[in-house]
Amino acid sequence: MDEACELRTAALTPSRRIRRTPYSERVEAAGVSAYTVYNHMLLPTAFGASVDDDYWHLRSAVQVWDVACQRQVELCGPDALRLAQLLTPRDLSRLRAGRCGYIPVVDAEGFLLNDPLLLRLAADWIWLSIADADLALYALGLAVGLGLDVRVSEADVHPLAVQGPLAEEVVAAVLGDGLRRIAFFAHARLPFQGRPLIVSRSGWSVQGGFEIYLDDAALGGELWDAIWAAGERFDIRAGYPHPAERIEGGLLSYGNDVTAADTPLEAGLERYCDGLDSGAACLGADALRARRAAGVRRRIAGVALDGPPVAGVVPPWPVATGSLPAGKITSAAWSPRLERTVCLAMLAIEACTTGTAVEVTTPSGPRQGYVCDLPFPGAVGERR
Amino acid sequence: MDEACELRTAALTPSRRIRRTPYSERVEAAGVSAYTVYNHMLLPTAFGASVDDDYWHLRSAVQVWDVACQRQVELCGPDALRLAQLLTPRDLSRLRAGRCGYIPVVDAEGFLLNDPLLLRLAADWIWLSIADADLALYALGLAVGLGLDVRVSEADVHPLAVQGPLAEEVVAAVLGDGLRRIAFFAHARLPFQGRPLIVSRSGWSVQGGFEIYLDDAALGGELWDAIWAAGERFDIRAGYPHPAERIEGGLLSYGNDVTAADTPLEAGLERYCDGLDSGAACLGADALRARRAAGVRRRIAGVALDGPPVAGVVPPWPVATGSLPAGKITSAAWSPRLERTVCLAMLAIEACTTGTAVEVTTPSGPRQGYVCDLPFPGAVGERR
Repeated sequence: MDEACELRTAALTPSRRIRRTPYSERVEAAGVSAYTVYNHMLLPTAFGASVDDDYWHLRSAVQVWDVACQRQVELCGPDALRLAQLLTPRDLSRLRAGRCGYIPVVDAEGFLLNDPLLLRLAADWIWLSIADADLALYALGLAVGLGLDVRVSEADVHPLAVQGPLAEEVVAAVLGDGLRRIAFFAHARLPFQGRPLIVSRSGWSVQGGFEIYLDDAALGGELWDAIWAAGERFDIRAGYPHPAERIEGGLLSYGNDVTAADTPLEAGLERYCDGLDSGAACLGADALRARRAAGVRRRIAGVALDGPPVAGVVPPWPVATGSLPAGKITSAAWSPRLERTVCLAMLAIEACTTGTAVEVTTPSGPRQGYVCDLPFPGAVGERR
Repeated sequence: MDEACELRTAALTPSRRIRRTPYSERVEAAGVSAYTVYNHMLLPTAFGASVDDDYWHLRSAVQVWDVACQRQVELCGPDALRLAQLLTPRDLSRLRAGRCGYIPVVDAEGFLLNDPLLLRLAADWIWLSIADADLALYALGLAVGLGLDVRVSEADVHPLAVQGPLAEEVVAAVLGDGLRRIAFFAHARLPFQGRPLIVSRSGWSVQGGFEIYLDDAALGGELWDAIWAAGERFDIRAGYPHPAERIEGGLLSYGNDVTAADTPLEAGLERYCDGLDSGAACLGADALRARRAAGVRRRIAGVALDGPPVAGVVPPWPVATGSLPAGKITSAAWSPRLERTVCLAMLAIEACTTGTAVEVTTPSGPRQGYVCDLPFPGAVGERR
């Protein structure tokens, strides 16, 4: 597995084009040792502790994550909601101000362009907290082409996530007890140093937590420090979206598990496509209804692999049932809890039944495994 | 400069989302030690030799670069040229099939969304070889919104660049002497293993060379090996777009030197805006004409800094003339030839005159410098 080792030790060359965040100095002081690049921005992926340690810690305590790379595509103006609805097969008519909603975004053929969290800030003001693709450009092109009365921009907003079962204690200590009244996938404005910040009960883990949408980059260090100080007695750590935790939680990664070659139906996101039946004006609705009627041939599923951690290159890895090709592993990570490699996979619909035995061709050789429910059993941990 | 050192030694975490290229195995075998991420893809940025060594080598010999990250946005269909013209203030009416053209791409307000090389493959078939932003999404949104008869996609094409004064000898040995008849910024189809590949005389250096648009990823290793074998007697090396060489050549980096906050007028790209006067149907034309009439207040210029190499974090760095703020350095690199730090800078128009003395606040402290012509004198080297 020389290739993978080579890749693992390669450095990331600094560049202004790969933007630092308002938290980068704090992340460096916390001992960041690796990054990925996400929406043209640095996203930390490792600190001092082992990835297994970070897994247990996230499930039992609290972590602060620099996820400023979750850029906010801002839609503002009379046609903001209309534009958002054109983008998604989810029916947005019942998503009132103060609520968040996870939405598949599709093109006119029904293929996935992104899977953001939508924040309805006001009647005519929306943020799309995007995955790794320049969705603002598609929204802008569409708005210009259709002559919509909406301003499309990337807001100067930098989310900081606090995740884990003790997140509420920590964030409430900084932003006040009003935080505790925020429902799951809702948001509110809470004051930090006299400045009202939008805070949502959401995040890219299934352990619970909050995302704080800092709209003044100059306050980045102070916000991080305040969270850190409040978190010390709860053993807070600098963390990052954790590969095994999010796979067990069934959280998709756009670009890894699904791409513009997949539809929301194949991504297992049917429950976010209610607009296909309610007649919501999504540009891809006709195409998706036709695909649904024709039958969906493959879908995202969970897979657990026996044996030790898989060394070597990242997926895709071929999956077979019996001797027949059945699809591919799209993400994989070692679960120290299940003592197996947990995976997401895009599999032929016949192979998606829980318990189906599969053989996976990994860089470490063939591995036996089986199809699991999503989320994986026990995906949510317990607070200490 | 602890921050910068920390950043420099941080690793890049492998991910399927950050795509490998058809050349990645060869790049690893050649000893790649650092990458950047560009259009969701790996772009090598360092091999074994020093960056100064690589500079001299590029100016005198030949290098092979994995620039598969220069993705091709394909516009195909009756409205392909119409869509391309909507994107750019450059007049495309005289750009016939077989030619390439560097084009600023702007939004309806005239701000830069990208600065691709356009390849006119046929009357109704265009590639845009893009800088680091998902331009396909903007083109797609526009095409859908306007109901244009054009297919917009990312082509399955992976450019390999051969750059340096000896590039023609090497590529002609692989693709045949027909290569020698390709004019600057023109392209032709030449056979590799019986497969006709599009080849252009172009590239992101000013030393001369070619870009080979491989449209069969399975042939990546063979193409690299064939170039390498033909290049051995010319001392070929694995290389990468070189920071000092491209700054001296006046080649802009989208995301570093210019962003969506700048117009082509500010980017110094007036000569690629002839469509503003010929009446070409660019969506941003009215806005750009109004900005031009109102007067352009800042522009990209070259700057040379005295003293040793600048240690520490990447730009932007503030620039002053006398005691007045005059703009910022946008890119900087040590030139072993000029024995100065060469920079691109976005400066107030009054400061853009060649020879203007400037003071730059770098992470290594204040530095004296002066404004230079673009390209810098002597930017093109000589073949050995």
